[in-house]
Amino acid sequence: MTKLWKITENSFDPRRLRHFETALTQGNGYLGTRATFEEHFPGEQRSTFVHGVFDDAPIVFSQLVNFPDWAQLDITLAGERFSLAEGQLLDYTRELDLRTGLLTRLVRWQSPGGRVSKLEFFRFASLKDQHLTCQRLLVTPENYSAEIKITSRLDAGTETIRYHHWHWLEQAVEGPAIWLRMQTAATKIEAALAQRVLFSGASQSEITMPDVVKMPSINLICQVETGQQIRYEKYSAIYTDRDCPDPKNEALKTLAQLTADPWEAQLQATTKAWQKEWDRCDVLIEGDHEAQLAIRFSIYHLLIAAPRHDERVNIGAKTLSGYGYHGHAFWDTEIFMLPLFTFTRPQIAKNLLSYRFHNLPGAREKAREGGFEGAQFPWESAGDGREVTPTWVPNPANRKELIRIWTGDIEIHISSDIAYAINQYWQLTGDDAFMARRGAEVILDTAKFWASRLEWNPQTSQYHLSDVIGPDEYHDHVDDNAFTNYLARWHLRKAVQIAAWLQAYSPEIASQLFSKLSINDQTFTDWDTIASQIFCPAVNDRGLIEQFTGYFDRTDVLTCDFDPRTESIQSLLGIEGANQSQILKQPDVIMLMYLLPELFDQATIQANYDYYTPRTDLTFGSSLGPSIQAIMATRLGSQADAYENFMRAARADLEDVRGNAADGIHGASAGGLWQAVVFGFGGLHIDGDSWHLQPHLPAHWKRLRFKFVWRGHEQVVDICAEEEKSCS
Amino acid sequence: MTKLWKITENSFDPRRLRHFETALTQGNGYLGTRATFEEHFPGEQRSTFVHGVFDDAPIVFSQLVNFPDWAQLDITLAGERFSLAEGQLLDYTRELDLRTGLLTRLVRWQSPGGRVSKLEFFRFASLKDQHLTCQRLLVTPENYSAEIKITSRLDAGTETIRYHHWHWLEQAVEGPAIWLRMQTAATKIEAALAQRVLFSGASQSEITMPDVVKMPSINLICQVETGQQIRYEKYSAIYTDRDCPDPKNEALKTLAQLTADPWEAQLQATTKAWQKEWDRCDVLIEGDHEAQLAIRFSIYHLLIAAPRHDERVNIGAKTLSGYGYHGHAFWDTEIFMLPLFTFTRPQIAKNLLSYRFHNLPGAREKAREGGFEGAQFPWESAGDGREVTPTWVPNPANRKELIRIWTGDIEIHISSDIAYAINQYWQLTGDDAFMARRGAEVILDTAKFWASRLEWNPQTSQYHLSDVIGPDEYHDHVDDNAFTNYLARWHLRKAVQIAAWLQAYSPEIASQLFSKLSINDQTFTDWDTIASQIFCPAVNDRGLIEQFTGYFDRTDVLTCDFDPRTESIQSLLGIEGANQSQILKQPDVIMLMYLLPELFDQATIQANYDYYTPRTDLTFGSSLGPSIQAIMATRLGSQADAYENFMRAARADLEDVRGNAADGIHGASAGGLWQAVVFGFGGLHIDGDSWHLQPHLPAHWKRLRFKFVWRGHEQVVDICAEEEKSCS
Repeated sequence: MTKLWKITENSFDPRRLRHFETALTQGNGYLGTRATFEEHFPGEQRSTFVHGVFDDAPIVFSQLVNFPDWAQLDITLAGERFSLAEGQLLDYTRELDLRTGLLTRLVRWQSPGGRVSKLEFFRFASLKDQHLTCQRLLVTPENYSAEIKITSRLDAGTETIRYHHWHWLEQAVEGPAIWLRMQTAATKIEAALAQRVLFSGASQSEITMPDVVKMPSINLICQVETGQQIRYEKYSAIYTDRDCPDPKNEALKTLAQLTADPWEAQLQATTKAWQKEWDRCDVLIEGDHEAQLAIRFSIYHLLIAAPRHDERVNIGAKTLSGYGYHGHAFWDTEIFMLPLFTFTRPQIAKNLLSYRFHNLPGAREKAREGGFEGAQFPWESAGDGREVTPTWVPNPANRKELIRIWTGDIEIHISSDIAYAINQYWQLTGDDAFMARRGAEVILDTAKFWASRLEWNPQTSQYHLSDVIGPDEYHDHVDDNAFTNYLARWHLRKAVQIAAWLQAYSPEIASQLFSKLSINDQTFTDWDTIASQIFCPAVNDRGLIEQFTGYFDRTDVLTCDFDPRTESIQSLLGIEGANQSQILKQPDVIMLMYLLPELFDQATIQANYDYYTPRTDLTFGSSLGPSIQAIMATRLGSQADAYENFMRAARADLEDVRGNAADGIHGASAGGLWQAVVFGFGGLHIDGDSWHLQPHLPAHWKRLRFKFVWRGHEQVVDICAEEEKSCS
Repeated sequence: MTKLWKITENSFDPRRLRHFETALTQGNGYLGTRATFEEHFPGEQRSTFVHGVFDDAPIVFSQLVNFPDWAQLDITLAGERFSLAEGQLLDYTRELDLRTGLLTRLVRWQSPGGRVSKLEFFRFASLKDQHLTCQRLLVTPENYSAEIKITSRLDAGTETIRYHHWHWLEQAVEGPAIWLRMQTAATKIEAALAQRVLFSGASQSEITMPDVVKMPSINLICQVETGQQIRYEKYSAIYTDRDCPDPKNEALKTLAQLTADPWEAQLQATTKAWQKEWDRCDVLIEGDHEAQLAIRFSIYHLLIAAPRHDERVNIGAKTLSGYGYHGHAFWDTEIFMLPLFTFTRPQIAKNLLSYRFHNLPGAREKAREGGFEGAQFPWESAGDGREVTPTWVPNPANRKELIRIWTGDIEIHISSDIAYAINQYWQLTGDDAFMARRGAEVILDTAKFWASRLEWNPQTSQYHLSDVIGPDEYHDHVDDNAFTNYLARWHLRKAVQIAAWLQAYSPEIASQLFSKLSINDQTFTDWDTIASQIFCPAVNDRGLIEQFTGYFDRTDVLTCDFDPRTESIQSLLGIEGANQSQILKQPDVIMLMYLLPELFDQATIQANYDYYTPRTDLTFGSSLGPSIQAIMATRLGSQADAYENFMRAARADLEDVRGNAADGIHGASAGGLWQAVVFGFGGLHIDGDSWHLQPHLPAHWKRLRFKFVWRGHEQVVDICAEEEKSCS
């Protein structure tokens, strides 16, 4: 069933250009490259991002920097430039093989001058050597013989959404390779790229390598006869000084180590590396082709964005596949994407959580700037872990009035989300060393933040959190958001437990850490007291938890009142209109019940699900909503709802149902989809020191099979529909 | 006395790199190019701007777009890249000849490898053909013989302060030339550049022209013997589709028309064109070398920024010589720079004033957006005449608080400044056709604006203008700024006179225009009434006019209280501190007395001069201040003060006394300097239908000679010191 492993584009539609650029993005956890055409196309959005290479930028403070495109080629056939924008397209197929990461494009093209050529493009980013990319082009002139020119280049002038981050440093032609050194303007990260070309199939050919400043190039000119096939291969190596002290030499070394005819060997090595990944991470679904392809598509996109050798980077909301959110990381990583890694690739989860540990200085700076103690993680985080949420963005309708973005100031639940993910990682892996050396410091210092942030109210004799934004961002500047308050309470109590555990596990580490953070046993007693005094809204007489104080007083409308629609309720009502209504951008109380299920009985969950669901914009609100909604539906036995929301998440980028896949993959939706299958339909749940299954497969699913790692040991779950039990 | 025509740099000091880049800028009224080194130098700020080629940009809305640098050269001598950042500089002289616009650089350089070479660079932008630039390089290896490589290129990746405006369109190698077509991203202005190279002097040489995409190049490789001199010349042509429908073909045509050995012919043609300019515009000062050089330097910089063939562009505050203010035009043009042109080059003045006429739609849009009638000119104006003053700019100290720039909202005196300049042009030239066809529409429609903007106060039975900024920008949000109110009154009265004149001059034009603007005789009667009811602060018991209501209540400090200092009073006191004090950024009441001298008697001028001068930051406040201050001092017989302020203006860019010459030439200071000489020391003034002289030469000046055009006829003024009368 290879088609359940392939994303295929059977005909070329320029209107879907940017959607497919995103969907067919390639990568290897080090770099990500959108599937733009080698030869360019008008309106394309080319990008190659390398993890951690951020630079300062106006308005958004910091952004991932676009690298020179390693796959670019200029092809001139008998004097006519090859471009799908001209001539006639006789055949077209493009296919991304999720099993190997190989992207193939087969084109038969008739030039404006009537010449027909067959062009076959192949390319991949090596998963074996993350600094290497490989591409191959086969060209066959069908009804002419002529001169063919192919040019490759390294372009130091590469821009990032019109912004120019690169300073050219140096370049040369050296042996069979060209190379280029550049540096980012403000962050001073040095990058080096090297490239070489192999060519065969023509009787006459000449390769020149003009050392044009800022654009070293490789030019091939050859004479090709009718029906003759030429083969052009290009190998590119990319390093930065985040990876090694001398990136240029490493890049040249990577190319020098290639064999004389490296294509097959490299493709095999990558295929093997991918096999290993899929062996650990694949989810098999029988009886539902669309679901099968969608889950693999989601896992693929998370795997190509997952840092394997770097613990100082995170995954941005749009992975490495587009310009959306500029590479900034949100809670999307810890709460939505991370479980896939925690359960199947714990080493990657550890890298991602270590990013937060390494960036504690930025979180401490943020807490201090706000007048608080400890560490407060930024809502948006980039290269160095400081807050990079835009504060003011241009208002397209009025040059004098900017729009204030408040999430960076008051969407404070992220510190608990990170603690939650660390605890989940610990629970799954039993990685005590990580918890002792890194996790505890994060959880305890963010607990310190909560203790200083919580507001004591003598009238109520309780702690409150006023002026916040919860997961549902349609409502800002609210008081006592249930999600935030419950998580803060959970956080303080977990911190006290972990402090006690650490004292038992290693008194020495505990003593060093407590001294570093200026905390002691009295602190933990205080935290316990504070936790018990946090106002966490109780279930009311209708069985409901109020999302925040006063939520039920807002205008009560349902999303169906606006049907049919093709945009979010917020764009229909306006920012203030949505704020004044009860419509949610995404589950909020329900999200709380997803993360802390032990606190709520089934009847409460049902009542809240029934109330909040028709008020949640699951189609055009947040892409984070549908997968969680699906999981909660499975827990309540609402299989139709579950599947509907599962499919919403499944189609976000595969079908572009939200209309914004062009900006990049919805990483949280992809991660949520895996959770919906494994925790929702699969019904996997962890209970203390053991795991359990309560499968709720959709009616038409015949089989669900997945693996995960439980305390260092691989577990295989294989559920067959008829008996809803293990098949094997 | 050729040295009084030359700006010379006798030794190279990297700390003054950007200052000299500005000071030695070349141009021809179409383009301006900073004097960056052909071979690049770290920390340089390269720019070539072409008038009118603006593109959208974040924060500043619109900015002049940097073009590929036509003068750039990569020079490799026996394998070593020529760069003043390496090796040893044995001799260095750079010289800009103001008479011809020729920039010469003589360098003897010892490479890190010990090779000594003599390099002589020459370049100019043709004043004969504004689309052509010419450069020549002579290289002589002194103690070695080896291969020399020289590369020229057209770089489509050229950035503008890190921002990337250019979309590459097309390029080719065609005959002996390379060419490149590009387009600005938002404004869609197409530019074409073409280049060709001539070479001689080596026994063996090869020129290749690699058609590298986005960077067509010309590579020369030659073998040179010790002591042998090679000659390399490059000719570049630049067109945009603002100039002609097919810029690429025009650029190629310009190059094709060059003779086989074009250097001498082109230099002669340009020298001749410059001679014609200097014959009209030169100011001769005998007895003061510094003043002589400074006035020529100022005139040179205004002449190279002055559009000769384009009436849809203006001159930005920093001319075409730097990134400061992004090419935006302010009142600096009409009040400070324009008199030089009005008096010596009326055709250029007409072009500049026509820019305002063509941009009336933008001014009408601004008035409408503010809720007013008629036309209100933008405080900052770029390509299309809409308001482009930044509204919010980043605050480097606090990411959450931006800085609001208010000048675009409330510095409203510019509409009168433009009317004033049109009237002055009319007075000097007697160009009735211009006034009837263009000037009147500007003056009448801006008068409509004033009539709607003025606020009737029934308590005072007067019209007021509250919440404005006058010329002195240290004080914002002030009420009844004397300068603004007096100018508005002058404006309304002048509009009534011009309406009457137009009805007499051409009843047909008058009727069409009045109907277009919906004004009639009743309107003019109303304007007269309104004008007589505008609150224009009278002289108080101390003989003073209060700059704005409540000014005298602000904290009274003097600038000398802060001596010695190296920064502005505003940076010492802070924005709010300066606002609360009586310190001025530049003359305001005194500026009013400069523009409308007929309203004030000598005693009043003296009293106000004596009061405001010690409160005006003439050293580090606005660069617009000193020249006006100098003129008013001459009128009051304060020759020492006059000369001191004259020298402040003279040294702004020549000596960089303000420390910001790197951002570009202070165009208003340069224009003010000419006014200080002609209207101040020369004492030229216009009185109705005749002109008069009241010279006040500085004691050490022996002679002052200048020309101007009075109603179409050239006038020569030649003042000798002894008798203070005409010399000839």
